[in-house]
Amino acid sequence: MKVKTPYAIQDEISKMLDWLASFGATDNNGVTRLLYSSPWIRAQQDLKEKMHSFGFQTHFDDVGNLFGRIEGTVEREQVILTGSHIDSVIEGGKYDGAYGIVASLLAAKELFHKYGKPKKTIEVVSLCEEEGSRFPLSFWGSGSITGKHHFDEIYSLTDNDGIPFKKAMASAGFGLNNYPNPRRDDIACFLEVHVEQGIILENSKQTLGVVSHIVGQKRFTITLTGQSNHAGTTPMNARKDALATACDLIHHLTNKAKQQSDLVATVGNIQVKPNVVNVVAGEATFTLDVRHHQQESLTTFCSEVFDYFQKVTDEQHIKLNIEQWMDDKPVKMDETLMSKMTDIIKKEKIPFRQMVSGAGHDSQVFGTFCPTALLFVPSHQGISHSPKEYTTPEDLATGVNILTSFLYELAYT
Amino acid sequence: MKVKTPYAIQDEISKMLDWLASFGATDNNGVTRLLYSSPWIRAQQDLKEKMHSFGFQTHFDDVGNLFGRIEGTVEREQVILTGSHIDSVIEGGKYDGAYGIVASLLAAKELFHKYGKPKKTIEVVSLCEEEGSRFPLSFWGSGSITGKHHFDEIYSLTDNDGIPFKKAMASAGFGLNNYPNPRRDDIACFLEVHVEQGIILENSKQTLGVVSHIVGQKRFTITLTGQSNHAGTTPMNARKDALATACDLIHHLTNKAKQQSDLVATVGNIQVKPNVVNVVAGEATFTLDVRHHQQESLTTFCSEVFDYFQKVTDEQHIKLNIEQWMDDKPVKMDETLMSKMTDIIKKEKIPFRQMVSGAGHDSQVFGTFCPTALLFVPSHQGISHSPKEYTTPEDLATGVNILTSFLYELAYT
Repeated sequence: MKVKTPYAIQDEISKMLDWLASFGATDNNGVTRLLYSSPWIRAQQDLKEKMHSFGFQTHFDDVGNLFGRIEGTVEREQVILTGSHIDSVIEGGKYDGAYGIVASLLAAKELFHKYGKPKKTIEVVSLCEEEGSRFPLSFWGSGSITGKHHFDEIYSLTDNDGIPFKKAMASAGFGLNNYPNPRRDDIACFLEVHVEQGIILENSKQTLGVVSHIVGQKRFTITLTGQSNHAGTTPMNARKDALATACDLIHHLTNKAKQQSDLVATVGNIQVKPNVVNVVAGEATFTLDVRHHQQESLTTFCSEVFDYFQKVTDEQHIKLNIEQWMDDKPVKMDETLMSKMTDIIKKEKIPFRQMVSGAGHDSQVFGTFCPTALLFVPSHQGISHSPKEYTTPEDLATGVNILTSFLYELAYT
Repeated sequence: MKVKTPYAIQDEISKMLDWLASFGATDNNGVTRLLYSSPWIRAQQDLKEKMHSFGFQTHFDDVGNLFGRIEGTVEREQVILTGSHIDSVIEGGKYDGAYGIVASLLAAKELFHKYGKPKKTIEVVSLCEEEGSRFPLSFWGSGSITGKHHFDEIYSLTDNDGIPFKKAMASAGFGLNNYPNPRRDDIACFLEVHVEQGIILENSKQTLGVVSHIVGQKRFTITLTGQSNHAGTTPMNARKDALATACDLIHHLTNKAKQQSDLVATVGNIQVKPNVVNVVAGEATFTLDVRHHQQESLTTFCSEVFDYFQKVTDEQHIKLNIEQWMDDKPVKMDETLMSKMTDIIKKEKIPFRQMVSGAGHDSQVFGTFCPTALLFVPSHQGISHSPKEYTTPEDLATGVNILTSFLYELAYT
């Protein structure tokens, strides 16, 4: 098939994004649509009606994932699944997740209305949760479908208001066996389009990013215990200054990260005790978030950095504690799907690059479960998780057009 | 005169310290005796009775400094003033300030009871405030006597409960013109003994420290404004990471301070925004406290460090703001008094050293107003501003004995 000119569907995309953003709209022009909240419930229910109006067969599963199905005529059992997540962060923007749902909906509708039923079954999915913004658990939607997550994980979880996960789920009508179990074994592949949430495409003036890997992530909490002391009467050489030593470690790891290819290492949070101007800090705790698309690079970096941490804290007579609380492996996208998608993009002469995703996506959960492809459109100034996130209508339309052609090739030929 | 053996007055010192610590005793075996609070009022009133029982003439001034006077027979107009401050920090110990009052009281009593009236007038002072623990102002006692502080400074000040300084002062009976104006022009010299609040004497196994200088202090608040960004999608070379850059600066200044003689530089407080594990920090604010006994060393250190700050933040495209909010000059103690005190200590063969005080003391306020001497006794493990502060009874007694001999030499010979 020939893709449309971008202009033909820009209006339709914008309208549907604005419509979705109205569920959970905030005073700051942002979106707060947390899992199982009232705006979330209304968004999923109205999306279901929208899918129905397009002629799709609709159903929820028992965690609240919403599916719109166009049954294939030849291979109806195996499903080409496409979509993204409907939940947002607190005060997020209107593109993250929502754009992937809109893109899949419009692509599937376009094909269905133009060519009728596909040979292979297509399902558009509005995944219930990806961000981990309400409960301390992320990828609840994709994880429930693929078996990464199970109901028994959520019984002890509560949100910031103390509401139990199970109760929130029940109040939205889910987790009550009223819908099919979310676990699926009929997914042939998963396709997602998403805003980049970074500045690589914009900086390189490219319209599309074909994602080759989603980075692995290791996260740690590092605590240094020194000795709190008087800032005036304790000579420099008699100090066990937890903050000054933490700064040494953070300075070192940042410099080292800058020398690596493609690796990012971030200390985003630091807490100091007693945190008083004229007292040498007795304790400093900071987080470390390290990401790379190759597991070996991740492991080597952390190991070398921690050797340095140990050496310095030993020298300073400071106690070091390193607690790891995340170890997500890198995930490779499917090479055959990447190659097919790239061929379409090249044919349309759209400026693109192959790239790594530094952010987590539902595609990383599907990527270890079934062949998966992820396509990025640019994020203006890389701004993400903010009411200010923005992608031009042209770029949004290009993403939808490529997904349409890709779905056509996979489901109709 | 011959000093007593330490053992003769250990009991008396301990009992009087315990008695003073009972005013504002906390559940943690600490002392919280804030300016004009109810324990403070009771302590000053009971100290007045104690002074009276020793035969001293007593009076308050209008800010609540308490004086016990032994009028001289020859030079009665010029006063040898000795004492320290009665206020404490929150959850402080029983030695800081209180020991100096007890030492002065017992030394003056011993001389008065043994030798009768001195040639020169002696006054023991219980200064109302030094710590700055209740209101954002310190040295209110010594500052009111010497003219460093004035009533018009306190009208806008409130404590953490919103109580105005003036109201608190009035509720304790002061600031109402019921007592003499605190300003004095008849102080011949000021003598103070104090716990070291550091570990230098204990580490060097010396009993007394003859203070030559009280350090100057410069304090700053330094703010770095970079850009908050996604920790996964922002490459290292595209970051304006305020926390990582702050760590570079703090690491640099700490290393540089270690290379200087006698200088201490402390970053005790840091605040980061948004302070979230997976977000590159957009803003970091930290304090810097620099102390040295020579003004030139202080100025040079700060200037060189800030040149580095400017260079690094320029390179990182981070906005730098340096706000100075304290600039206390170093104060030299009086050489003649130091020399006399040293002669007495040497005669008694007590292990001592000449040293710099890294902490602030009332002696620094008197030191720019009249000849002043400050004597330290050891602090066990350097612990200060804590219920755990401790000095051995032997060391406390040695300090009192030396002060007694010193007062004898100054007032009786």
